Amino acid sequence: MAGKSAKRLLRALAGDAMPTPPWWLMRQAGRYLPEYRALRARAGSFIEFCLSPALAAEATLQPVRRFGMDAAILFSDILLVAQALGQPLDYTDDGPRLAPLAPESGLRALRRDGIAALAPVYETVRLARAALPAEVALIGFAGAPWTVATYMVEGGASRDYHRVKGWAYRDPGGFAALMNLLVEATVAYLAEQIVAGVDAVQLFDSWAGVLPEAEFVRWVIQPTKEIALRLKRRFPAMPIIGFPRGAGVLYERYAAESGVDALGLDTTVSLAFARDRLQTKLPVQGNLDPVALFVGGRVLEEAVATIRDALGDGAFVFNLGHGVLPQTPPENIAALSRLLAQ
Amino acid sequence: MAGKSAKRLLRALAGDAMPTPPWWLMRQAGRYLPEYRALRARAGSFIEFCLSPALAAEATLQPVRRFGMDAAILFSDILLVAQALGQPLDYTDDGPRLAPLAPESGLRALRRDGIAALAPVYETVRLARAALPAEVALIGFAGAPWTVATYMVEGGASRDYHRVKGWAYRDPGGFAALMNLLVEATVAYLAEQIVAGVDAVQLFDSWAGVLPEAEFVRWVIQPTKEIALRLKRRFPAMPIIGFPRGAGVLYERYAAESGVDALGLDTTVSLAFARDRLQTKLPVQGNLDPVALFVGGRVLEEAVATIRDALGDGAFVFNLGHGVLPQTPPENIAALSRLLAQ
Repeated sequence: MAGKSAKRLLRALAGDAMPTPPWWLMRQAGRYLPEYRALRARAGSFIEFCLSPALAAEATLQPVRRFGMDAAILFSDILLVAQALGQPLDYTDDGPRLAPLAPESGLRALRRDGIAALAPVYETVRLARAALPAEVALIGFAGAPWTVATYMVEGGASRDYHRVKGWAYRDPGGFAALMNLLVEATVAYLAEQIVAGVDAVQLFDSWAGVLPEAEFVRWVIQPTKEIALRLKRRFPAMPIIGFPRGAGVLYERYAAESGVDALGLDTTVSLAFARDRLQTKLPVQGNLDPVALFVGGRVLEEAVATIRDALGDGAFVFNLGHGVLPQTPPENIAALSRLLAQ
Repeated sequence: MAGKSAKRLLRALAGDAMPTPPWWLMRQAGRYLPEYRALRARAGSFIEFCLSPALAAEATLQPVRRFGMDAAILFSDILLVAQALGQPLDYTDDGPRLAPLAPESGLRALRRDGIAALAPVYETVRLARAALPAEVALIGFAGAPWTVATYMVEGGASRDYHRVKGWAYRDPGGFAALMNLLVEATVAYLAEQIVAGVDAVQLFDSWAGVLPEAEFVRWVIQPTKEIALRLKRRFPAMPIIGFPRGAGVLYERYAAESGVDALGLDTTVSLAFARDRLQTKLPVQGNLDPVALFVGGRVLEEAVATIRDALGDGAFVFNLGHGVLPQTPPENIAALSRLLAQ
C-alpha cells in the first residue's frame, strides 16, 4: 500500500488526513499559461500535439514547475481513445467533433486493437515521470466509458443526449457491446499508463449527471466497477480516483458501489453532504469553483477556507470542481498555492 | 384554498394524493407537433410569435386538445422579460442570443418599467383561459432571476458561466441590483398573469445547478423566496411550482427554504431521495426522462411505472424532468396519456 509514501497525494488517497492538503488542478496544463501557448504553437493539430511525447511531457510539467503542485496530470485528451478505436476526431472552437457512431455498423467497424496507436502517450508518461521530482505524483487518466460513448454517439457535446440515451434505452444489449469494448480499451490503456509509470489514475465521467438512477447504475457505476476490479487484479496498490461529474445525490451510491479509491467532487456538491455522506466512505478531492479561481482575491481566499474547513480534517485532496478556465490569471494560482501552504 | 377544486392539477398541488396523477409536460406546446409547426409558419420571428395573442393562445391549447393533459402551460419564453427590460434578443439555431449585459452601464440602461411591453402575454392568458375546459388548469410561468440573469450576462447559453458568476462573486452588491430588478419584474409579470387568469405559476430556474451551496442559497433560494412571499401577499391561494433544475443534493434545502408550494424534479433526481426527502415536505412534479418519451414502447411503460411506484402514493404531478424533445413522435404522448389513465 502507499502508506507513508513520500508523495503527499498518495498519502491522502490512502486515507491519511494531512495538515495541509495535497493539491493539483484539473486542466492545470493549458491555455491559461503563456508557456503552454508557446509550446502549443510548435505542433499542428491538437491531436498531433497530444501524441508528441516531448511536447506533451513538457505541457505536463509546466504547471508543476511554476506552482509546485503535489501532482502532475498527464497532458492528453479523453477522446484519443475514440480516435484510436477508429473514429475520426477533430477539435473545433466549439469543442470536439466526431462522425457520430451508427449503432450497428459503426460498432462493427471499430478497431478493437486500436489502442496500440496510443503508444506515444505511454512515452509521454515515461518522459514526464523521469523529469518529475520523486515527491510529485504523476496522474494518468481516461474518460469513463459512458462519457466516451456519449461523445462517440452524439458526435460532440450535446444538449439532450437523445442519440446516446436513445440507443442505450432502446437497445441496451447492443449498447452494452459498445460499452464492453470501451471497458476493454480503457483497462488496456490505463494498464499501459501504469506500466509506464503513473502513480494514480483518474476516470473522468463528465456526463455522468444526465442519467436517471437505474441507468446511472448500469452505465456509470457498473463499467467503472469493472474497470476498477480488473486494474486492481493486476495493480492492487494503484489508487483510482472516480469523477462522476454532476451525479448529485447519486454520488453517494457511486461512492459505495463503484470500487474506486477516491472521489472527485464537482463544484455543486454541497460540502456538508460531502463531509457527512461521502468522506465517511472514501477520500474526496475537490471542489473549488473554477470561477472563484478566475476571480481571485478575497473571493478565492474565502472559498478555499470554506472547503478546507469542511473537508480538511479527513482524507482530502484539494482541487477544482471542474477544469481551470482559460481566462484564469496565472498569479491567482500562485496565490492559491500560498493559501494552501498555510 | 384550492381544496376540492375541479382541477386535478390544483388538488395535487394542494397536497392530495390522487389514484391517477394529474399530468402535463414541459414544452408540451412545440415543434414535435405538426399543428404547431403549421401555426408557427404564420408569424415572422419567434418573439413576434410569442407576442401574438391569438397564435400563442392556439399553441397553448393544441397539446391539450390532442392529448387531454390536466394542464395547459402558457406558450411563451422566459427571455421575453430580458427583452422587455431593454436587452435586444434574437433566437438562432444554437439558442437565444442577447447582447451581453455589461455590469454597470448595462444595468443602468435597463428599463425598469419595461414589463408593460408584455401586455400581449396577458391577452394570451385571457384567450387561452376562456377557451380551456373548466377542469383543465392553465399554468403561467417566468424564468427565475438567476437563470434570466445568466442569459442576460452571458449573452446566451454558456459552457462555464464565468461572466455571470464572475460578476456575482466579484461584486455581489452590484449583481444584487440586477437580481433585485429581476425580482421586481418577475413579481409584476406573474401578478399580471395571475390577474389575467392563470391557475398556478412555475418558476423555471434552468441553471440553478451550476452554483456552489452558499451562492445557491443567495442567488437561487433567496430571490425565489422573495418572489413567493410577495405573490402570496397578494394571491394567498395561488400555487407556485419551483423548478431548480440540476440542484442535486441542494433540492432538499430549496424544498425547505424557498417558499414554493411544489417542486419540479429534473430527470436525474433519484426517486428514493425524492420520496424520502422531498415529497415529505412538498408535492413533487416530474421527472420522466424526455428520451424515454422519445423512445416510447416498453421503455416508456417501464419508466412511467417506476416513477408512479415511487411517487404515486403522495402528492404528485406527472411530468417530464426536462422539455419534450422536438424529435418525439406525437403517438408516444398519446400512449403516455393512456398509461397514466390506468
